[in-house]
Amino acid sequence: MVNIAVLGYGTVGSGVVEVINTNHEIINKRAGEEINIKYVLDLRDFPGDPVQQILTHDFNDILNDDEVKVVVEVMGGINPAYTFVKQCLAAGKSVATSNKELVASHGPELLAIAKENNVNFLFEASVGGGIPIIRPLNTSITADEVTEITGILNGTTNYILTKMDQEGASYDEVLKQAQDLGYAERNPEADVEGGDACRKIAILTSIVYGKHLDYTKIHTEGITKISTEDFKYADALGVSIKLVGTTKKEGDTLYSFVAPMMLDENHPLSGIHDVFNGIFVHGNVVDDIMFYGRGAGKLPTASAVVSDVVDEVKHMGKNIMASWDAEALPIGDFRDAVNRFFIRVSADAITKDEIQKLFGDVTYVTAEGVDGELAFITSSMTEGSFADITAKIDKIFSIIRVAF
Amino acid sequence: MVNIAVLGYGTVGSGVVEVINTNHEIINKRAGEEINIKYVLDLRDFPGDPVQQILTHDFNDILNDDEVKVVVEVMGGINPAYTFVKQCLAAGKSVATSNKELVASHGPELLAIAKENNVNFLFEASVGGGIPIIRPLNTSITADEVTEITGILNGTTNYILTKMDQEGASYDEVLKQAQDLGYAERNPEADVEGGDACRKIAILTSIVYGKHLDYTKIHTEGITKISTEDFKYADALGVSIKLVGTTKKEGDTLYSFVAPMMLDENHPLSGIHDVFNGIFVHGNVVDDIMFYGRGAGKLPTASAVVSDVVDEVKHMGKNIMASWDAEALPIGDFRDAVNRFFIRVSADAITKDEIQKLFGDVTYVTAEGVDGELAFITSSMTEGSFADITAKIDKIFSIIRVAF
Repeated sequence: MVNIAVLGYGTVGSGVVEVINTNHEIINKRAGEEINIKYVLDLRDFPGDPVQQILTHDFNDILNDDEVKVVVEVMGGINPAYTFVKQCLAAGKSVATSNKELVASHGPELLAIAKENNVNFLFEASVGGGIPIIRPLNTSITADEVTEITGILNGTTNYILTKMDQEGASYDEVLKQAQDLGYAERNPEADVEGGDACRKIAILTSIVYGKHLDYTKIHTEGITKISTEDFKYADALGVSIKLVGTTKKEGDTLYSFVAPMMLDENHPLSGIHDVFNGIFVHGNVVDDIMFYGRGAGKLPTASAVVSDVVDEVKHMGKNIMASWDAEALPIGDFRDAVNRFFIRVSADAITKDEIQKLFGDVTYVTAEGVDGELAFITSSMTEGSFADITAKIDKIFSIIRVAF
Repeated sequence: MVNIAVLGYGTVGSGVVEVINTNHEIINKRAGEEINIKYVLDLRDFPGDPVQQILTHDFNDILNDDEVKVVVEVMGGINPAYTFVKQCLAAGKSVATSNKELVASHGPELLAIAKENNVNFLFEASVGGGIPIIRPLNTSITADEVTEITGILNGTTNYILTKMDQEGASYDEVLKQAQDLGYAERNPEADVEGGDACRKIAILTSIVYGKHLDYTKIHTEGITKISTEDFKYADALGVSIKLVGTTKKEGDTLYSFVAPMMLDENHPLSGIHDVFNGIFVHGNVVDDIMFYGRGAGKLPTASAVVSDVVDEVKHMGKNIMASWDAEALPIGDFRDAVNRFFIRVSADAITKDEIQKLFGDVTYVTAEGVDGELAFITSSMTEGSFADITAKIDKIFSIIRVAF
């Protein structure tokens, strides 16, 4: 029997308890040991819930109990999660977490402490919810030089963009619906401004390249400026608009950013709708692969956390996670990244001749019911040149990068 | 340094050598050891190819060399692959193979020999080419009761069906094109009659449920009867036709079959085209997940084989594969499986009244340019009832199962 403790009895924490109870037999068989939840840590009480019998308010009960070999951290946020996790690892307990903030900020340090103590720090649920992606990157995509990793990494924004597309509704309307359904937070900033996706692409990139990509260095745009008109053009083009986090190798340089992008129907991520997530990986020998599933939600996220617990139980005394050094991963200046751009400008502000002079050859796009503006797709150009040119233009309604 | 040997220098074997040479540095870093190809076994000579220096015609050179710790079996077929692999495992060498026939026929025995000898028998490349699926099923989907696994598992047939759909061409025309392009064998039976997909769904099912599903017990239909008219109806319905291998739990019973199926656009496999493969998994807590990539091809397949080699080098002396017992996995009688059916019957042979009497309520479908027949989709019914009813009807043009 292996004793575990769960830090935090919120959505994911209660999901972890539920998954372990529901699938007890299967999980124990796969782990090769009976998994017993000895403690749940939460500051609150849960009268009437069976969890009350194993509830503690004192983290030290867990830290000081040598019988606890695996700790699940699902409190979220940096503090006190960071301190707790560090102490657990130093005390020789493996840790499984769903906490993307913690992993993006302190991943390399925590992995190093785990390695020193011959235990494991695993975080499958920190990116892509229930989708197996961290473990496949660590153990399956090992024969390849990965040249691109691009993901739809945030379920809230994908839900909003899907509804805007399908219902022709505005961003504000759909956000409100999403909030009413519980798919978006009352304060949605972390999702809609891209911050959540930014931390997740930082984690994926760091795992793949083995060095630390500081998420604050990643150019990040959200979806708040995407309009119903943009979707009319997307329909005319037969493409979808998705918020992606991407890291791509061009020559010897890695470029990383988070932004809405137009994907055509040939892109494996273009058909990923609603709250689903998808992660696309290109390797120099395996070519294109893609992983799809529920990027959030109580049980899918808990499923990933428990799969880490199973792996930790199977690997007692053996560190299995690829290293991810504290050394900074060098990435290129965003101004040097090369992209194509969809851009909409007021017809008052510019003529086609001027567009030709500024951008060279472009492809014009028209959409039914949208007048008084010029919309076009540029050739490939650097972000820097594009920013310099667009700085000179008044009344730009929209800029969306194009992945085709 | 770890010495390995490659049995067979055909397409995949030369791919394995190429992948190890091309990505030498990355692979060695991930394996934590330098991987050295000491032997390549082939009956042929390859004058001018650098492989000639490490070529042997005698398997005993490899078997008797204690320095060889990992053997790659990419010869295909049951014999002599089976004998060679068994001898290697018994001699304490780990084996990585892409050989689906070998795995489907002798998987449990070879896994057991590997376990006894504290080595590994891995076969990531045997299903889905470069797609990570065996390892995720073994190590990631461990918190779930899997209730369905359905895959587009054969690239040749998916290519043929995609072209028939996109070009309105007949099966025979597209098969010929595919043969000319090298996407289909001159003798295409194993692909087009579903035998390849059958072995692959048998492997996936056995891994998930831990007991042996004998592939000869799986009801298997191919794509040779799919016609341009079927695609006209599929277009009218807005669905795609894919050859799937599927195992699904209904109540406490597992049903498994290989057959063409109509998938609507909400199905994660519906957008998988050309030679790509996809594997859809439903777990009781993780919900839907899907894995996508190149199901065949020299380098993608070799990428998966080499990822197994890396895993074996990382796990010297530790058996890591979940057990898959020789005991037969009980599956339900195919006659008891419940499906919905799309069916096309000559208008001479039956009236709508008779259809109502035989099938109860059905949904009629019409397609532009197809006359003289009645096409409809049944309600859910058992395969047995369906077979009994259709046995009474003359001039049935087509029967395709429906997944919506």
